[in-house]
Amino acid sequence: MQPNWIKQRAYLTPNRVALSFHDEQWTFNELYLQSVRLAYKLNTLRLTNGKRVAILAPSTPPLIELLYACMQAQCEMVLLNGRLAKQELSYQVDDAEVDAILVADEELVKLPDDDRIIPFSKLYKTTESEYDIAAQWNEDFALTIMYTSGTTGFPKGVCQTVSNHSSSAISSALNLGISEKDTWLCTVPIFHISGFSIVVRSLLYGMKIRLYEKFDAKKCAQEIMEGTVTKMSVVSVILENILSEMEQAGKKAHPNFTIALAGGGPVPIDYLKRSEELDLRVAQTYGMTETSSQTATLANEDAMTHIGSAGKPLFFNEIKIDAKDGECIGEILIRGPHVTPKYIGRFKDKPTTSNGWLHTGDVGYLDEQGYLFVVDRRSDLIISGGENIYPAEIENLLLGHPNVKEAGVCGMEHDKWGQVPVAFIVAKEQMTEQEIIGFCTQHLANYKVPKHVHFVRHLPRSGSNKLLRRKLMQLLEE
Amino acid sequence: MQPNWIKQRAYLTPNRVALSFHDEQWTFNELYLQSVRLAYKLNTLRLTNGKRVAILAPSTPPLIELLYACMQAQCEMVLLNGRLAKQELSYQVDDAEVDAILVADEELVKLPDDDRIIPFSKLYKTTESEYDIAAQWNEDFALTIMYTSGTTGFPKGVCQTVSNHSSSAISSALNLGISEKDTWLCTVPIFHISGFSIVVRSLLYGMKIRLYEKFDAKKCAQEIMEGTVTKMSVVSVILENILSEMEQAGKKAHPNFTIALAGGGPVPIDYLKRSEELDLRVAQTYGMTETSSQTATLANEDAMTHIGSAGKPLFFNEIKIDAKDGECIGEILIRGPHVTPKYIGRFKDKPTTSNGWLHTGDVGYLDEQGYLFVVDRRSDLIISGGENIYPAEIENLLLGHPNVKEAGVCGMEHDKWGQVPVAFIVAKEQMTEQEIIGFCTQHLANYKVPKHVHFVRHLPRSGSNKLLRRKLMQLLEE
Repeated sequence: MQPNWIKQRAYLTPNRVALSFHDEQWTFNELYLQSVRLAYKLNTLRLTNGKRVAILAPSTPPLIELLYACMQAQCEMVLLNGRLAKQELSYQVDDAEVDAILVADEELVKLPDDDRIIPFSKLYKTTESEYDIAAQWNEDFALTIMYTSGTTGFPKGVCQTVSNHSSSAISSALNLGISEKDTWLCTVPIFHISGFSIVVRSLLYGMKIRLYEKFDAKKCAQEIMEGTVTKMSVVSVILENILSEMEQAGKKAHPNFTIALAGGGPVPIDYLKRSEELDLRVAQTYGMTETSSQTATLANEDAMTHIGSAGKPLFFNEIKIDAKDGECIGEILIRGPHVTPKYIGRFKDKPTTSNGWLHTGDVGYLDEQGYLFVVDRRSDLIISGGENIYPAEIENLLLGHPNVKEAGVCGMEHDKWGQVPVAFIVAKEQMTEQEIIGFCTQHLANYKVPKHVHFVRHLPRSGSNKLLRRKLMQLLEE
Repeated sequence: MQPNWIKQRAYLTPNRVALSFHDEQWTFNELYLQSVRLAYKLNTLRLTNGKRVAILAPSTPPLIELLYACMQAQCEMVLLNGRLAKQELSYQVDDAEVDAILVADEELVKLPDDDRIIPFSKLYKTTESEYDIAAQWNEDFALTIMYTSGTTGFPKGVCQTVSNHSSSAISSALNLGISEKDTWLCTVPIFHISGFSIVVRSLLYGMKIRLYEKFDAKKCAQEIMEGTVTKMSVVSVILENILSEMEQAGKKAHPNFTIALAGGGPVPIDYLKRSEELDLRVAQTYGMTETSSQTATLANEDAMTHIGSAGKPLFFNEIKIDAKDGECIGEILIRGPHVTPKYIGRFKDKPTTSNGWLHTGDVGYLDEQGYLFVVDRRSDLIISGGENIYPAEIENLLLGHPNVKEAGVCGMEHDKWGQVPVAFIVAKEQMTEQEIIGFCTQHLANYKVPKHVHFVRHLPRSGSNKLLRRKLMQLLEE
């Protein structure tokens, strides 16, 4: 058992600022009181004590309040990604068998009709019915569920328990340090583990979140230069935008700013050099939804000597490479209290670990000093602007098109997004690139829609007829 | 399971300084390598994997190395207090049924003969036999056992598990913050929970310990003024000595120095005021052997507004007052992952908690904002120079004297030590104060020997004939 984080935090440091957004700010006590009222409304709607609710909302204070309220009401929260297509969102709420879908009014258009939808405006108008909010939380309670596409192409609902989240926040603190002066700049989406983990750290550390609904390079650079924030989560493309702004302004990072935590793949060496010149410390990390955020982190002081490395595991975690005899490269395995204990829905019977080890599907190696190098992000995973795109998911859709015989998808280098998906099609009858793109647009989030389509006579396959996506990439280069 | 702390720390930050003593220092990797060799020697002596060893040594680097080695060898360590009398130490090693007693050569004289004694010199000369050191530790493993006297007068062996210690260190970090620049000045005895918990923090945080065998006010004040240390554990008397030195030197605390953690009873307001003038931040704490160190801490910013308070619980802990209806003062109960799960030896069947709550025996209250005030330290506990003295233990001894009919012991205010024990005797035949003091000196640590003896005709007792120690204190005042 752990104390109810929200109640405990409001008790310990009621007057500390918890959240700041534009020119407004809220203390932990204010958020606590608001979330209690909202929890009483949820109670009226019978959404308490283990009920499962999906949440779709932009990264603004009402979302934070609602997350607090759902935690207080002990609801399992399925965090929906507003960038997904209607069909994808439908799959998730159905697979998760949610009891309700709480939706910010402005995002209602993103969802297909569903009886379970409760717009925020309706929730706010609901009367409050008081009840006894739990003083303690079960460590195994699934606080959040986030969907991540597996290699099969069917998104998996990953549970992150109270204990997963708390151990992640603790391990991060042991690595990065914490100070009561900390403010974490949050521009990453809250529905992602990268964003939600900032909310958890805020509660456990008593730390202020400086929230942006959308990333704003100019303003973020300014906060870093003025020292109004001390930490930040970034992906490479975001980091680059900030660096450009800072270079233009001709100012360095304020000494208050301690670290930019960079996830979603290695940071290009050029960015690291530019960061160094701006006194902007960068810690590269490796983590995923199944590990409740960071698993390994490269200390800033090692950044230039271990370029391309994701560093060493956090204190309570372990990393092992499942390599064949004589080889050092193999699948990356992870063990620790931050690893998800279970999937839900379609994959509920699939174990998440084997002998305690999570098989990430990623390929990598540890160098002689034990620094992790990730060679392939889940072999064929495409990372586009920080979003994970799984080729198999797109392939599965394409194969549903009546004129597609075979389909293969891989990532193509892209200046702005890092990578974008590209499709290879073996067609039954002649068809156009536009037909394929139009078909995908109907069913997929925009960022998952292939940017180019190549029609080929056959796809590269292994002896056992398995699609060789890496060969697709070679074809692209040729 | 948790990773072997020592191995993990040496892997993560091998070159960080772990320990500094006089002019020497050791990195985490150096201590790791030394402790592996020492663990191999322990293996030759068959002291591994759950064997229980008592350790008696001064607070010097060889003790730290041995603690590391025993942890690596997975021995349960019974930490002996070198200030205790032979008879008291005998009780502990017998009650704990230790397999060996590892003793620094210079402390051999403090122990009665015992076949289980292994002087450090003999241990060092033992050949090494390699074996597979555990990569993971069981969370329930009793890393340490420390004896604390109960109200019955029989010392209780309190187990502190891997998880007790780690959660204590984590909660402390969430409260005080951590930085890779931290150095913890350790002048408190390592065999006490106050000292051992610094060793744990060092391993979990990757933090340097600046170790002193004995407290040296001048040198400690100097380290604080020069900023070579950032944190420190103190009791009031130690704090006062440091303040005096700093006042004499006319220098303030260096900005590097973040906090002095003050335990063992409330800090007098005069000391707090003097600390403030010297920019020396003080956090008052409440904790005990059964809670693996700190349970509550008063933030520095609250020190002057909540004088006498021990603050609020640490994040993962809870405090409750077991008060009668309509009263706010009552026994202090504590719940959390830092609370000992078991005693050993004579008390092995005594549960440590009831419904998860540790009954401290201390009396206190929470004010309206939830700040803890400790009214009585375990009702009648005497705290002398930071050492706990339990009246019942001395009374039990006195009652063993052929000429003592009844005995009662309480604490008397003392300028230097805070308190000293005083005895009240109902004698069978006339006897002298010197006889009683001489008798006690044979069997008790010096600080436990009553400083005054009053001969009375009867002792104040309750209706049920229970000794009323508080009435003894009133007698003293009269």
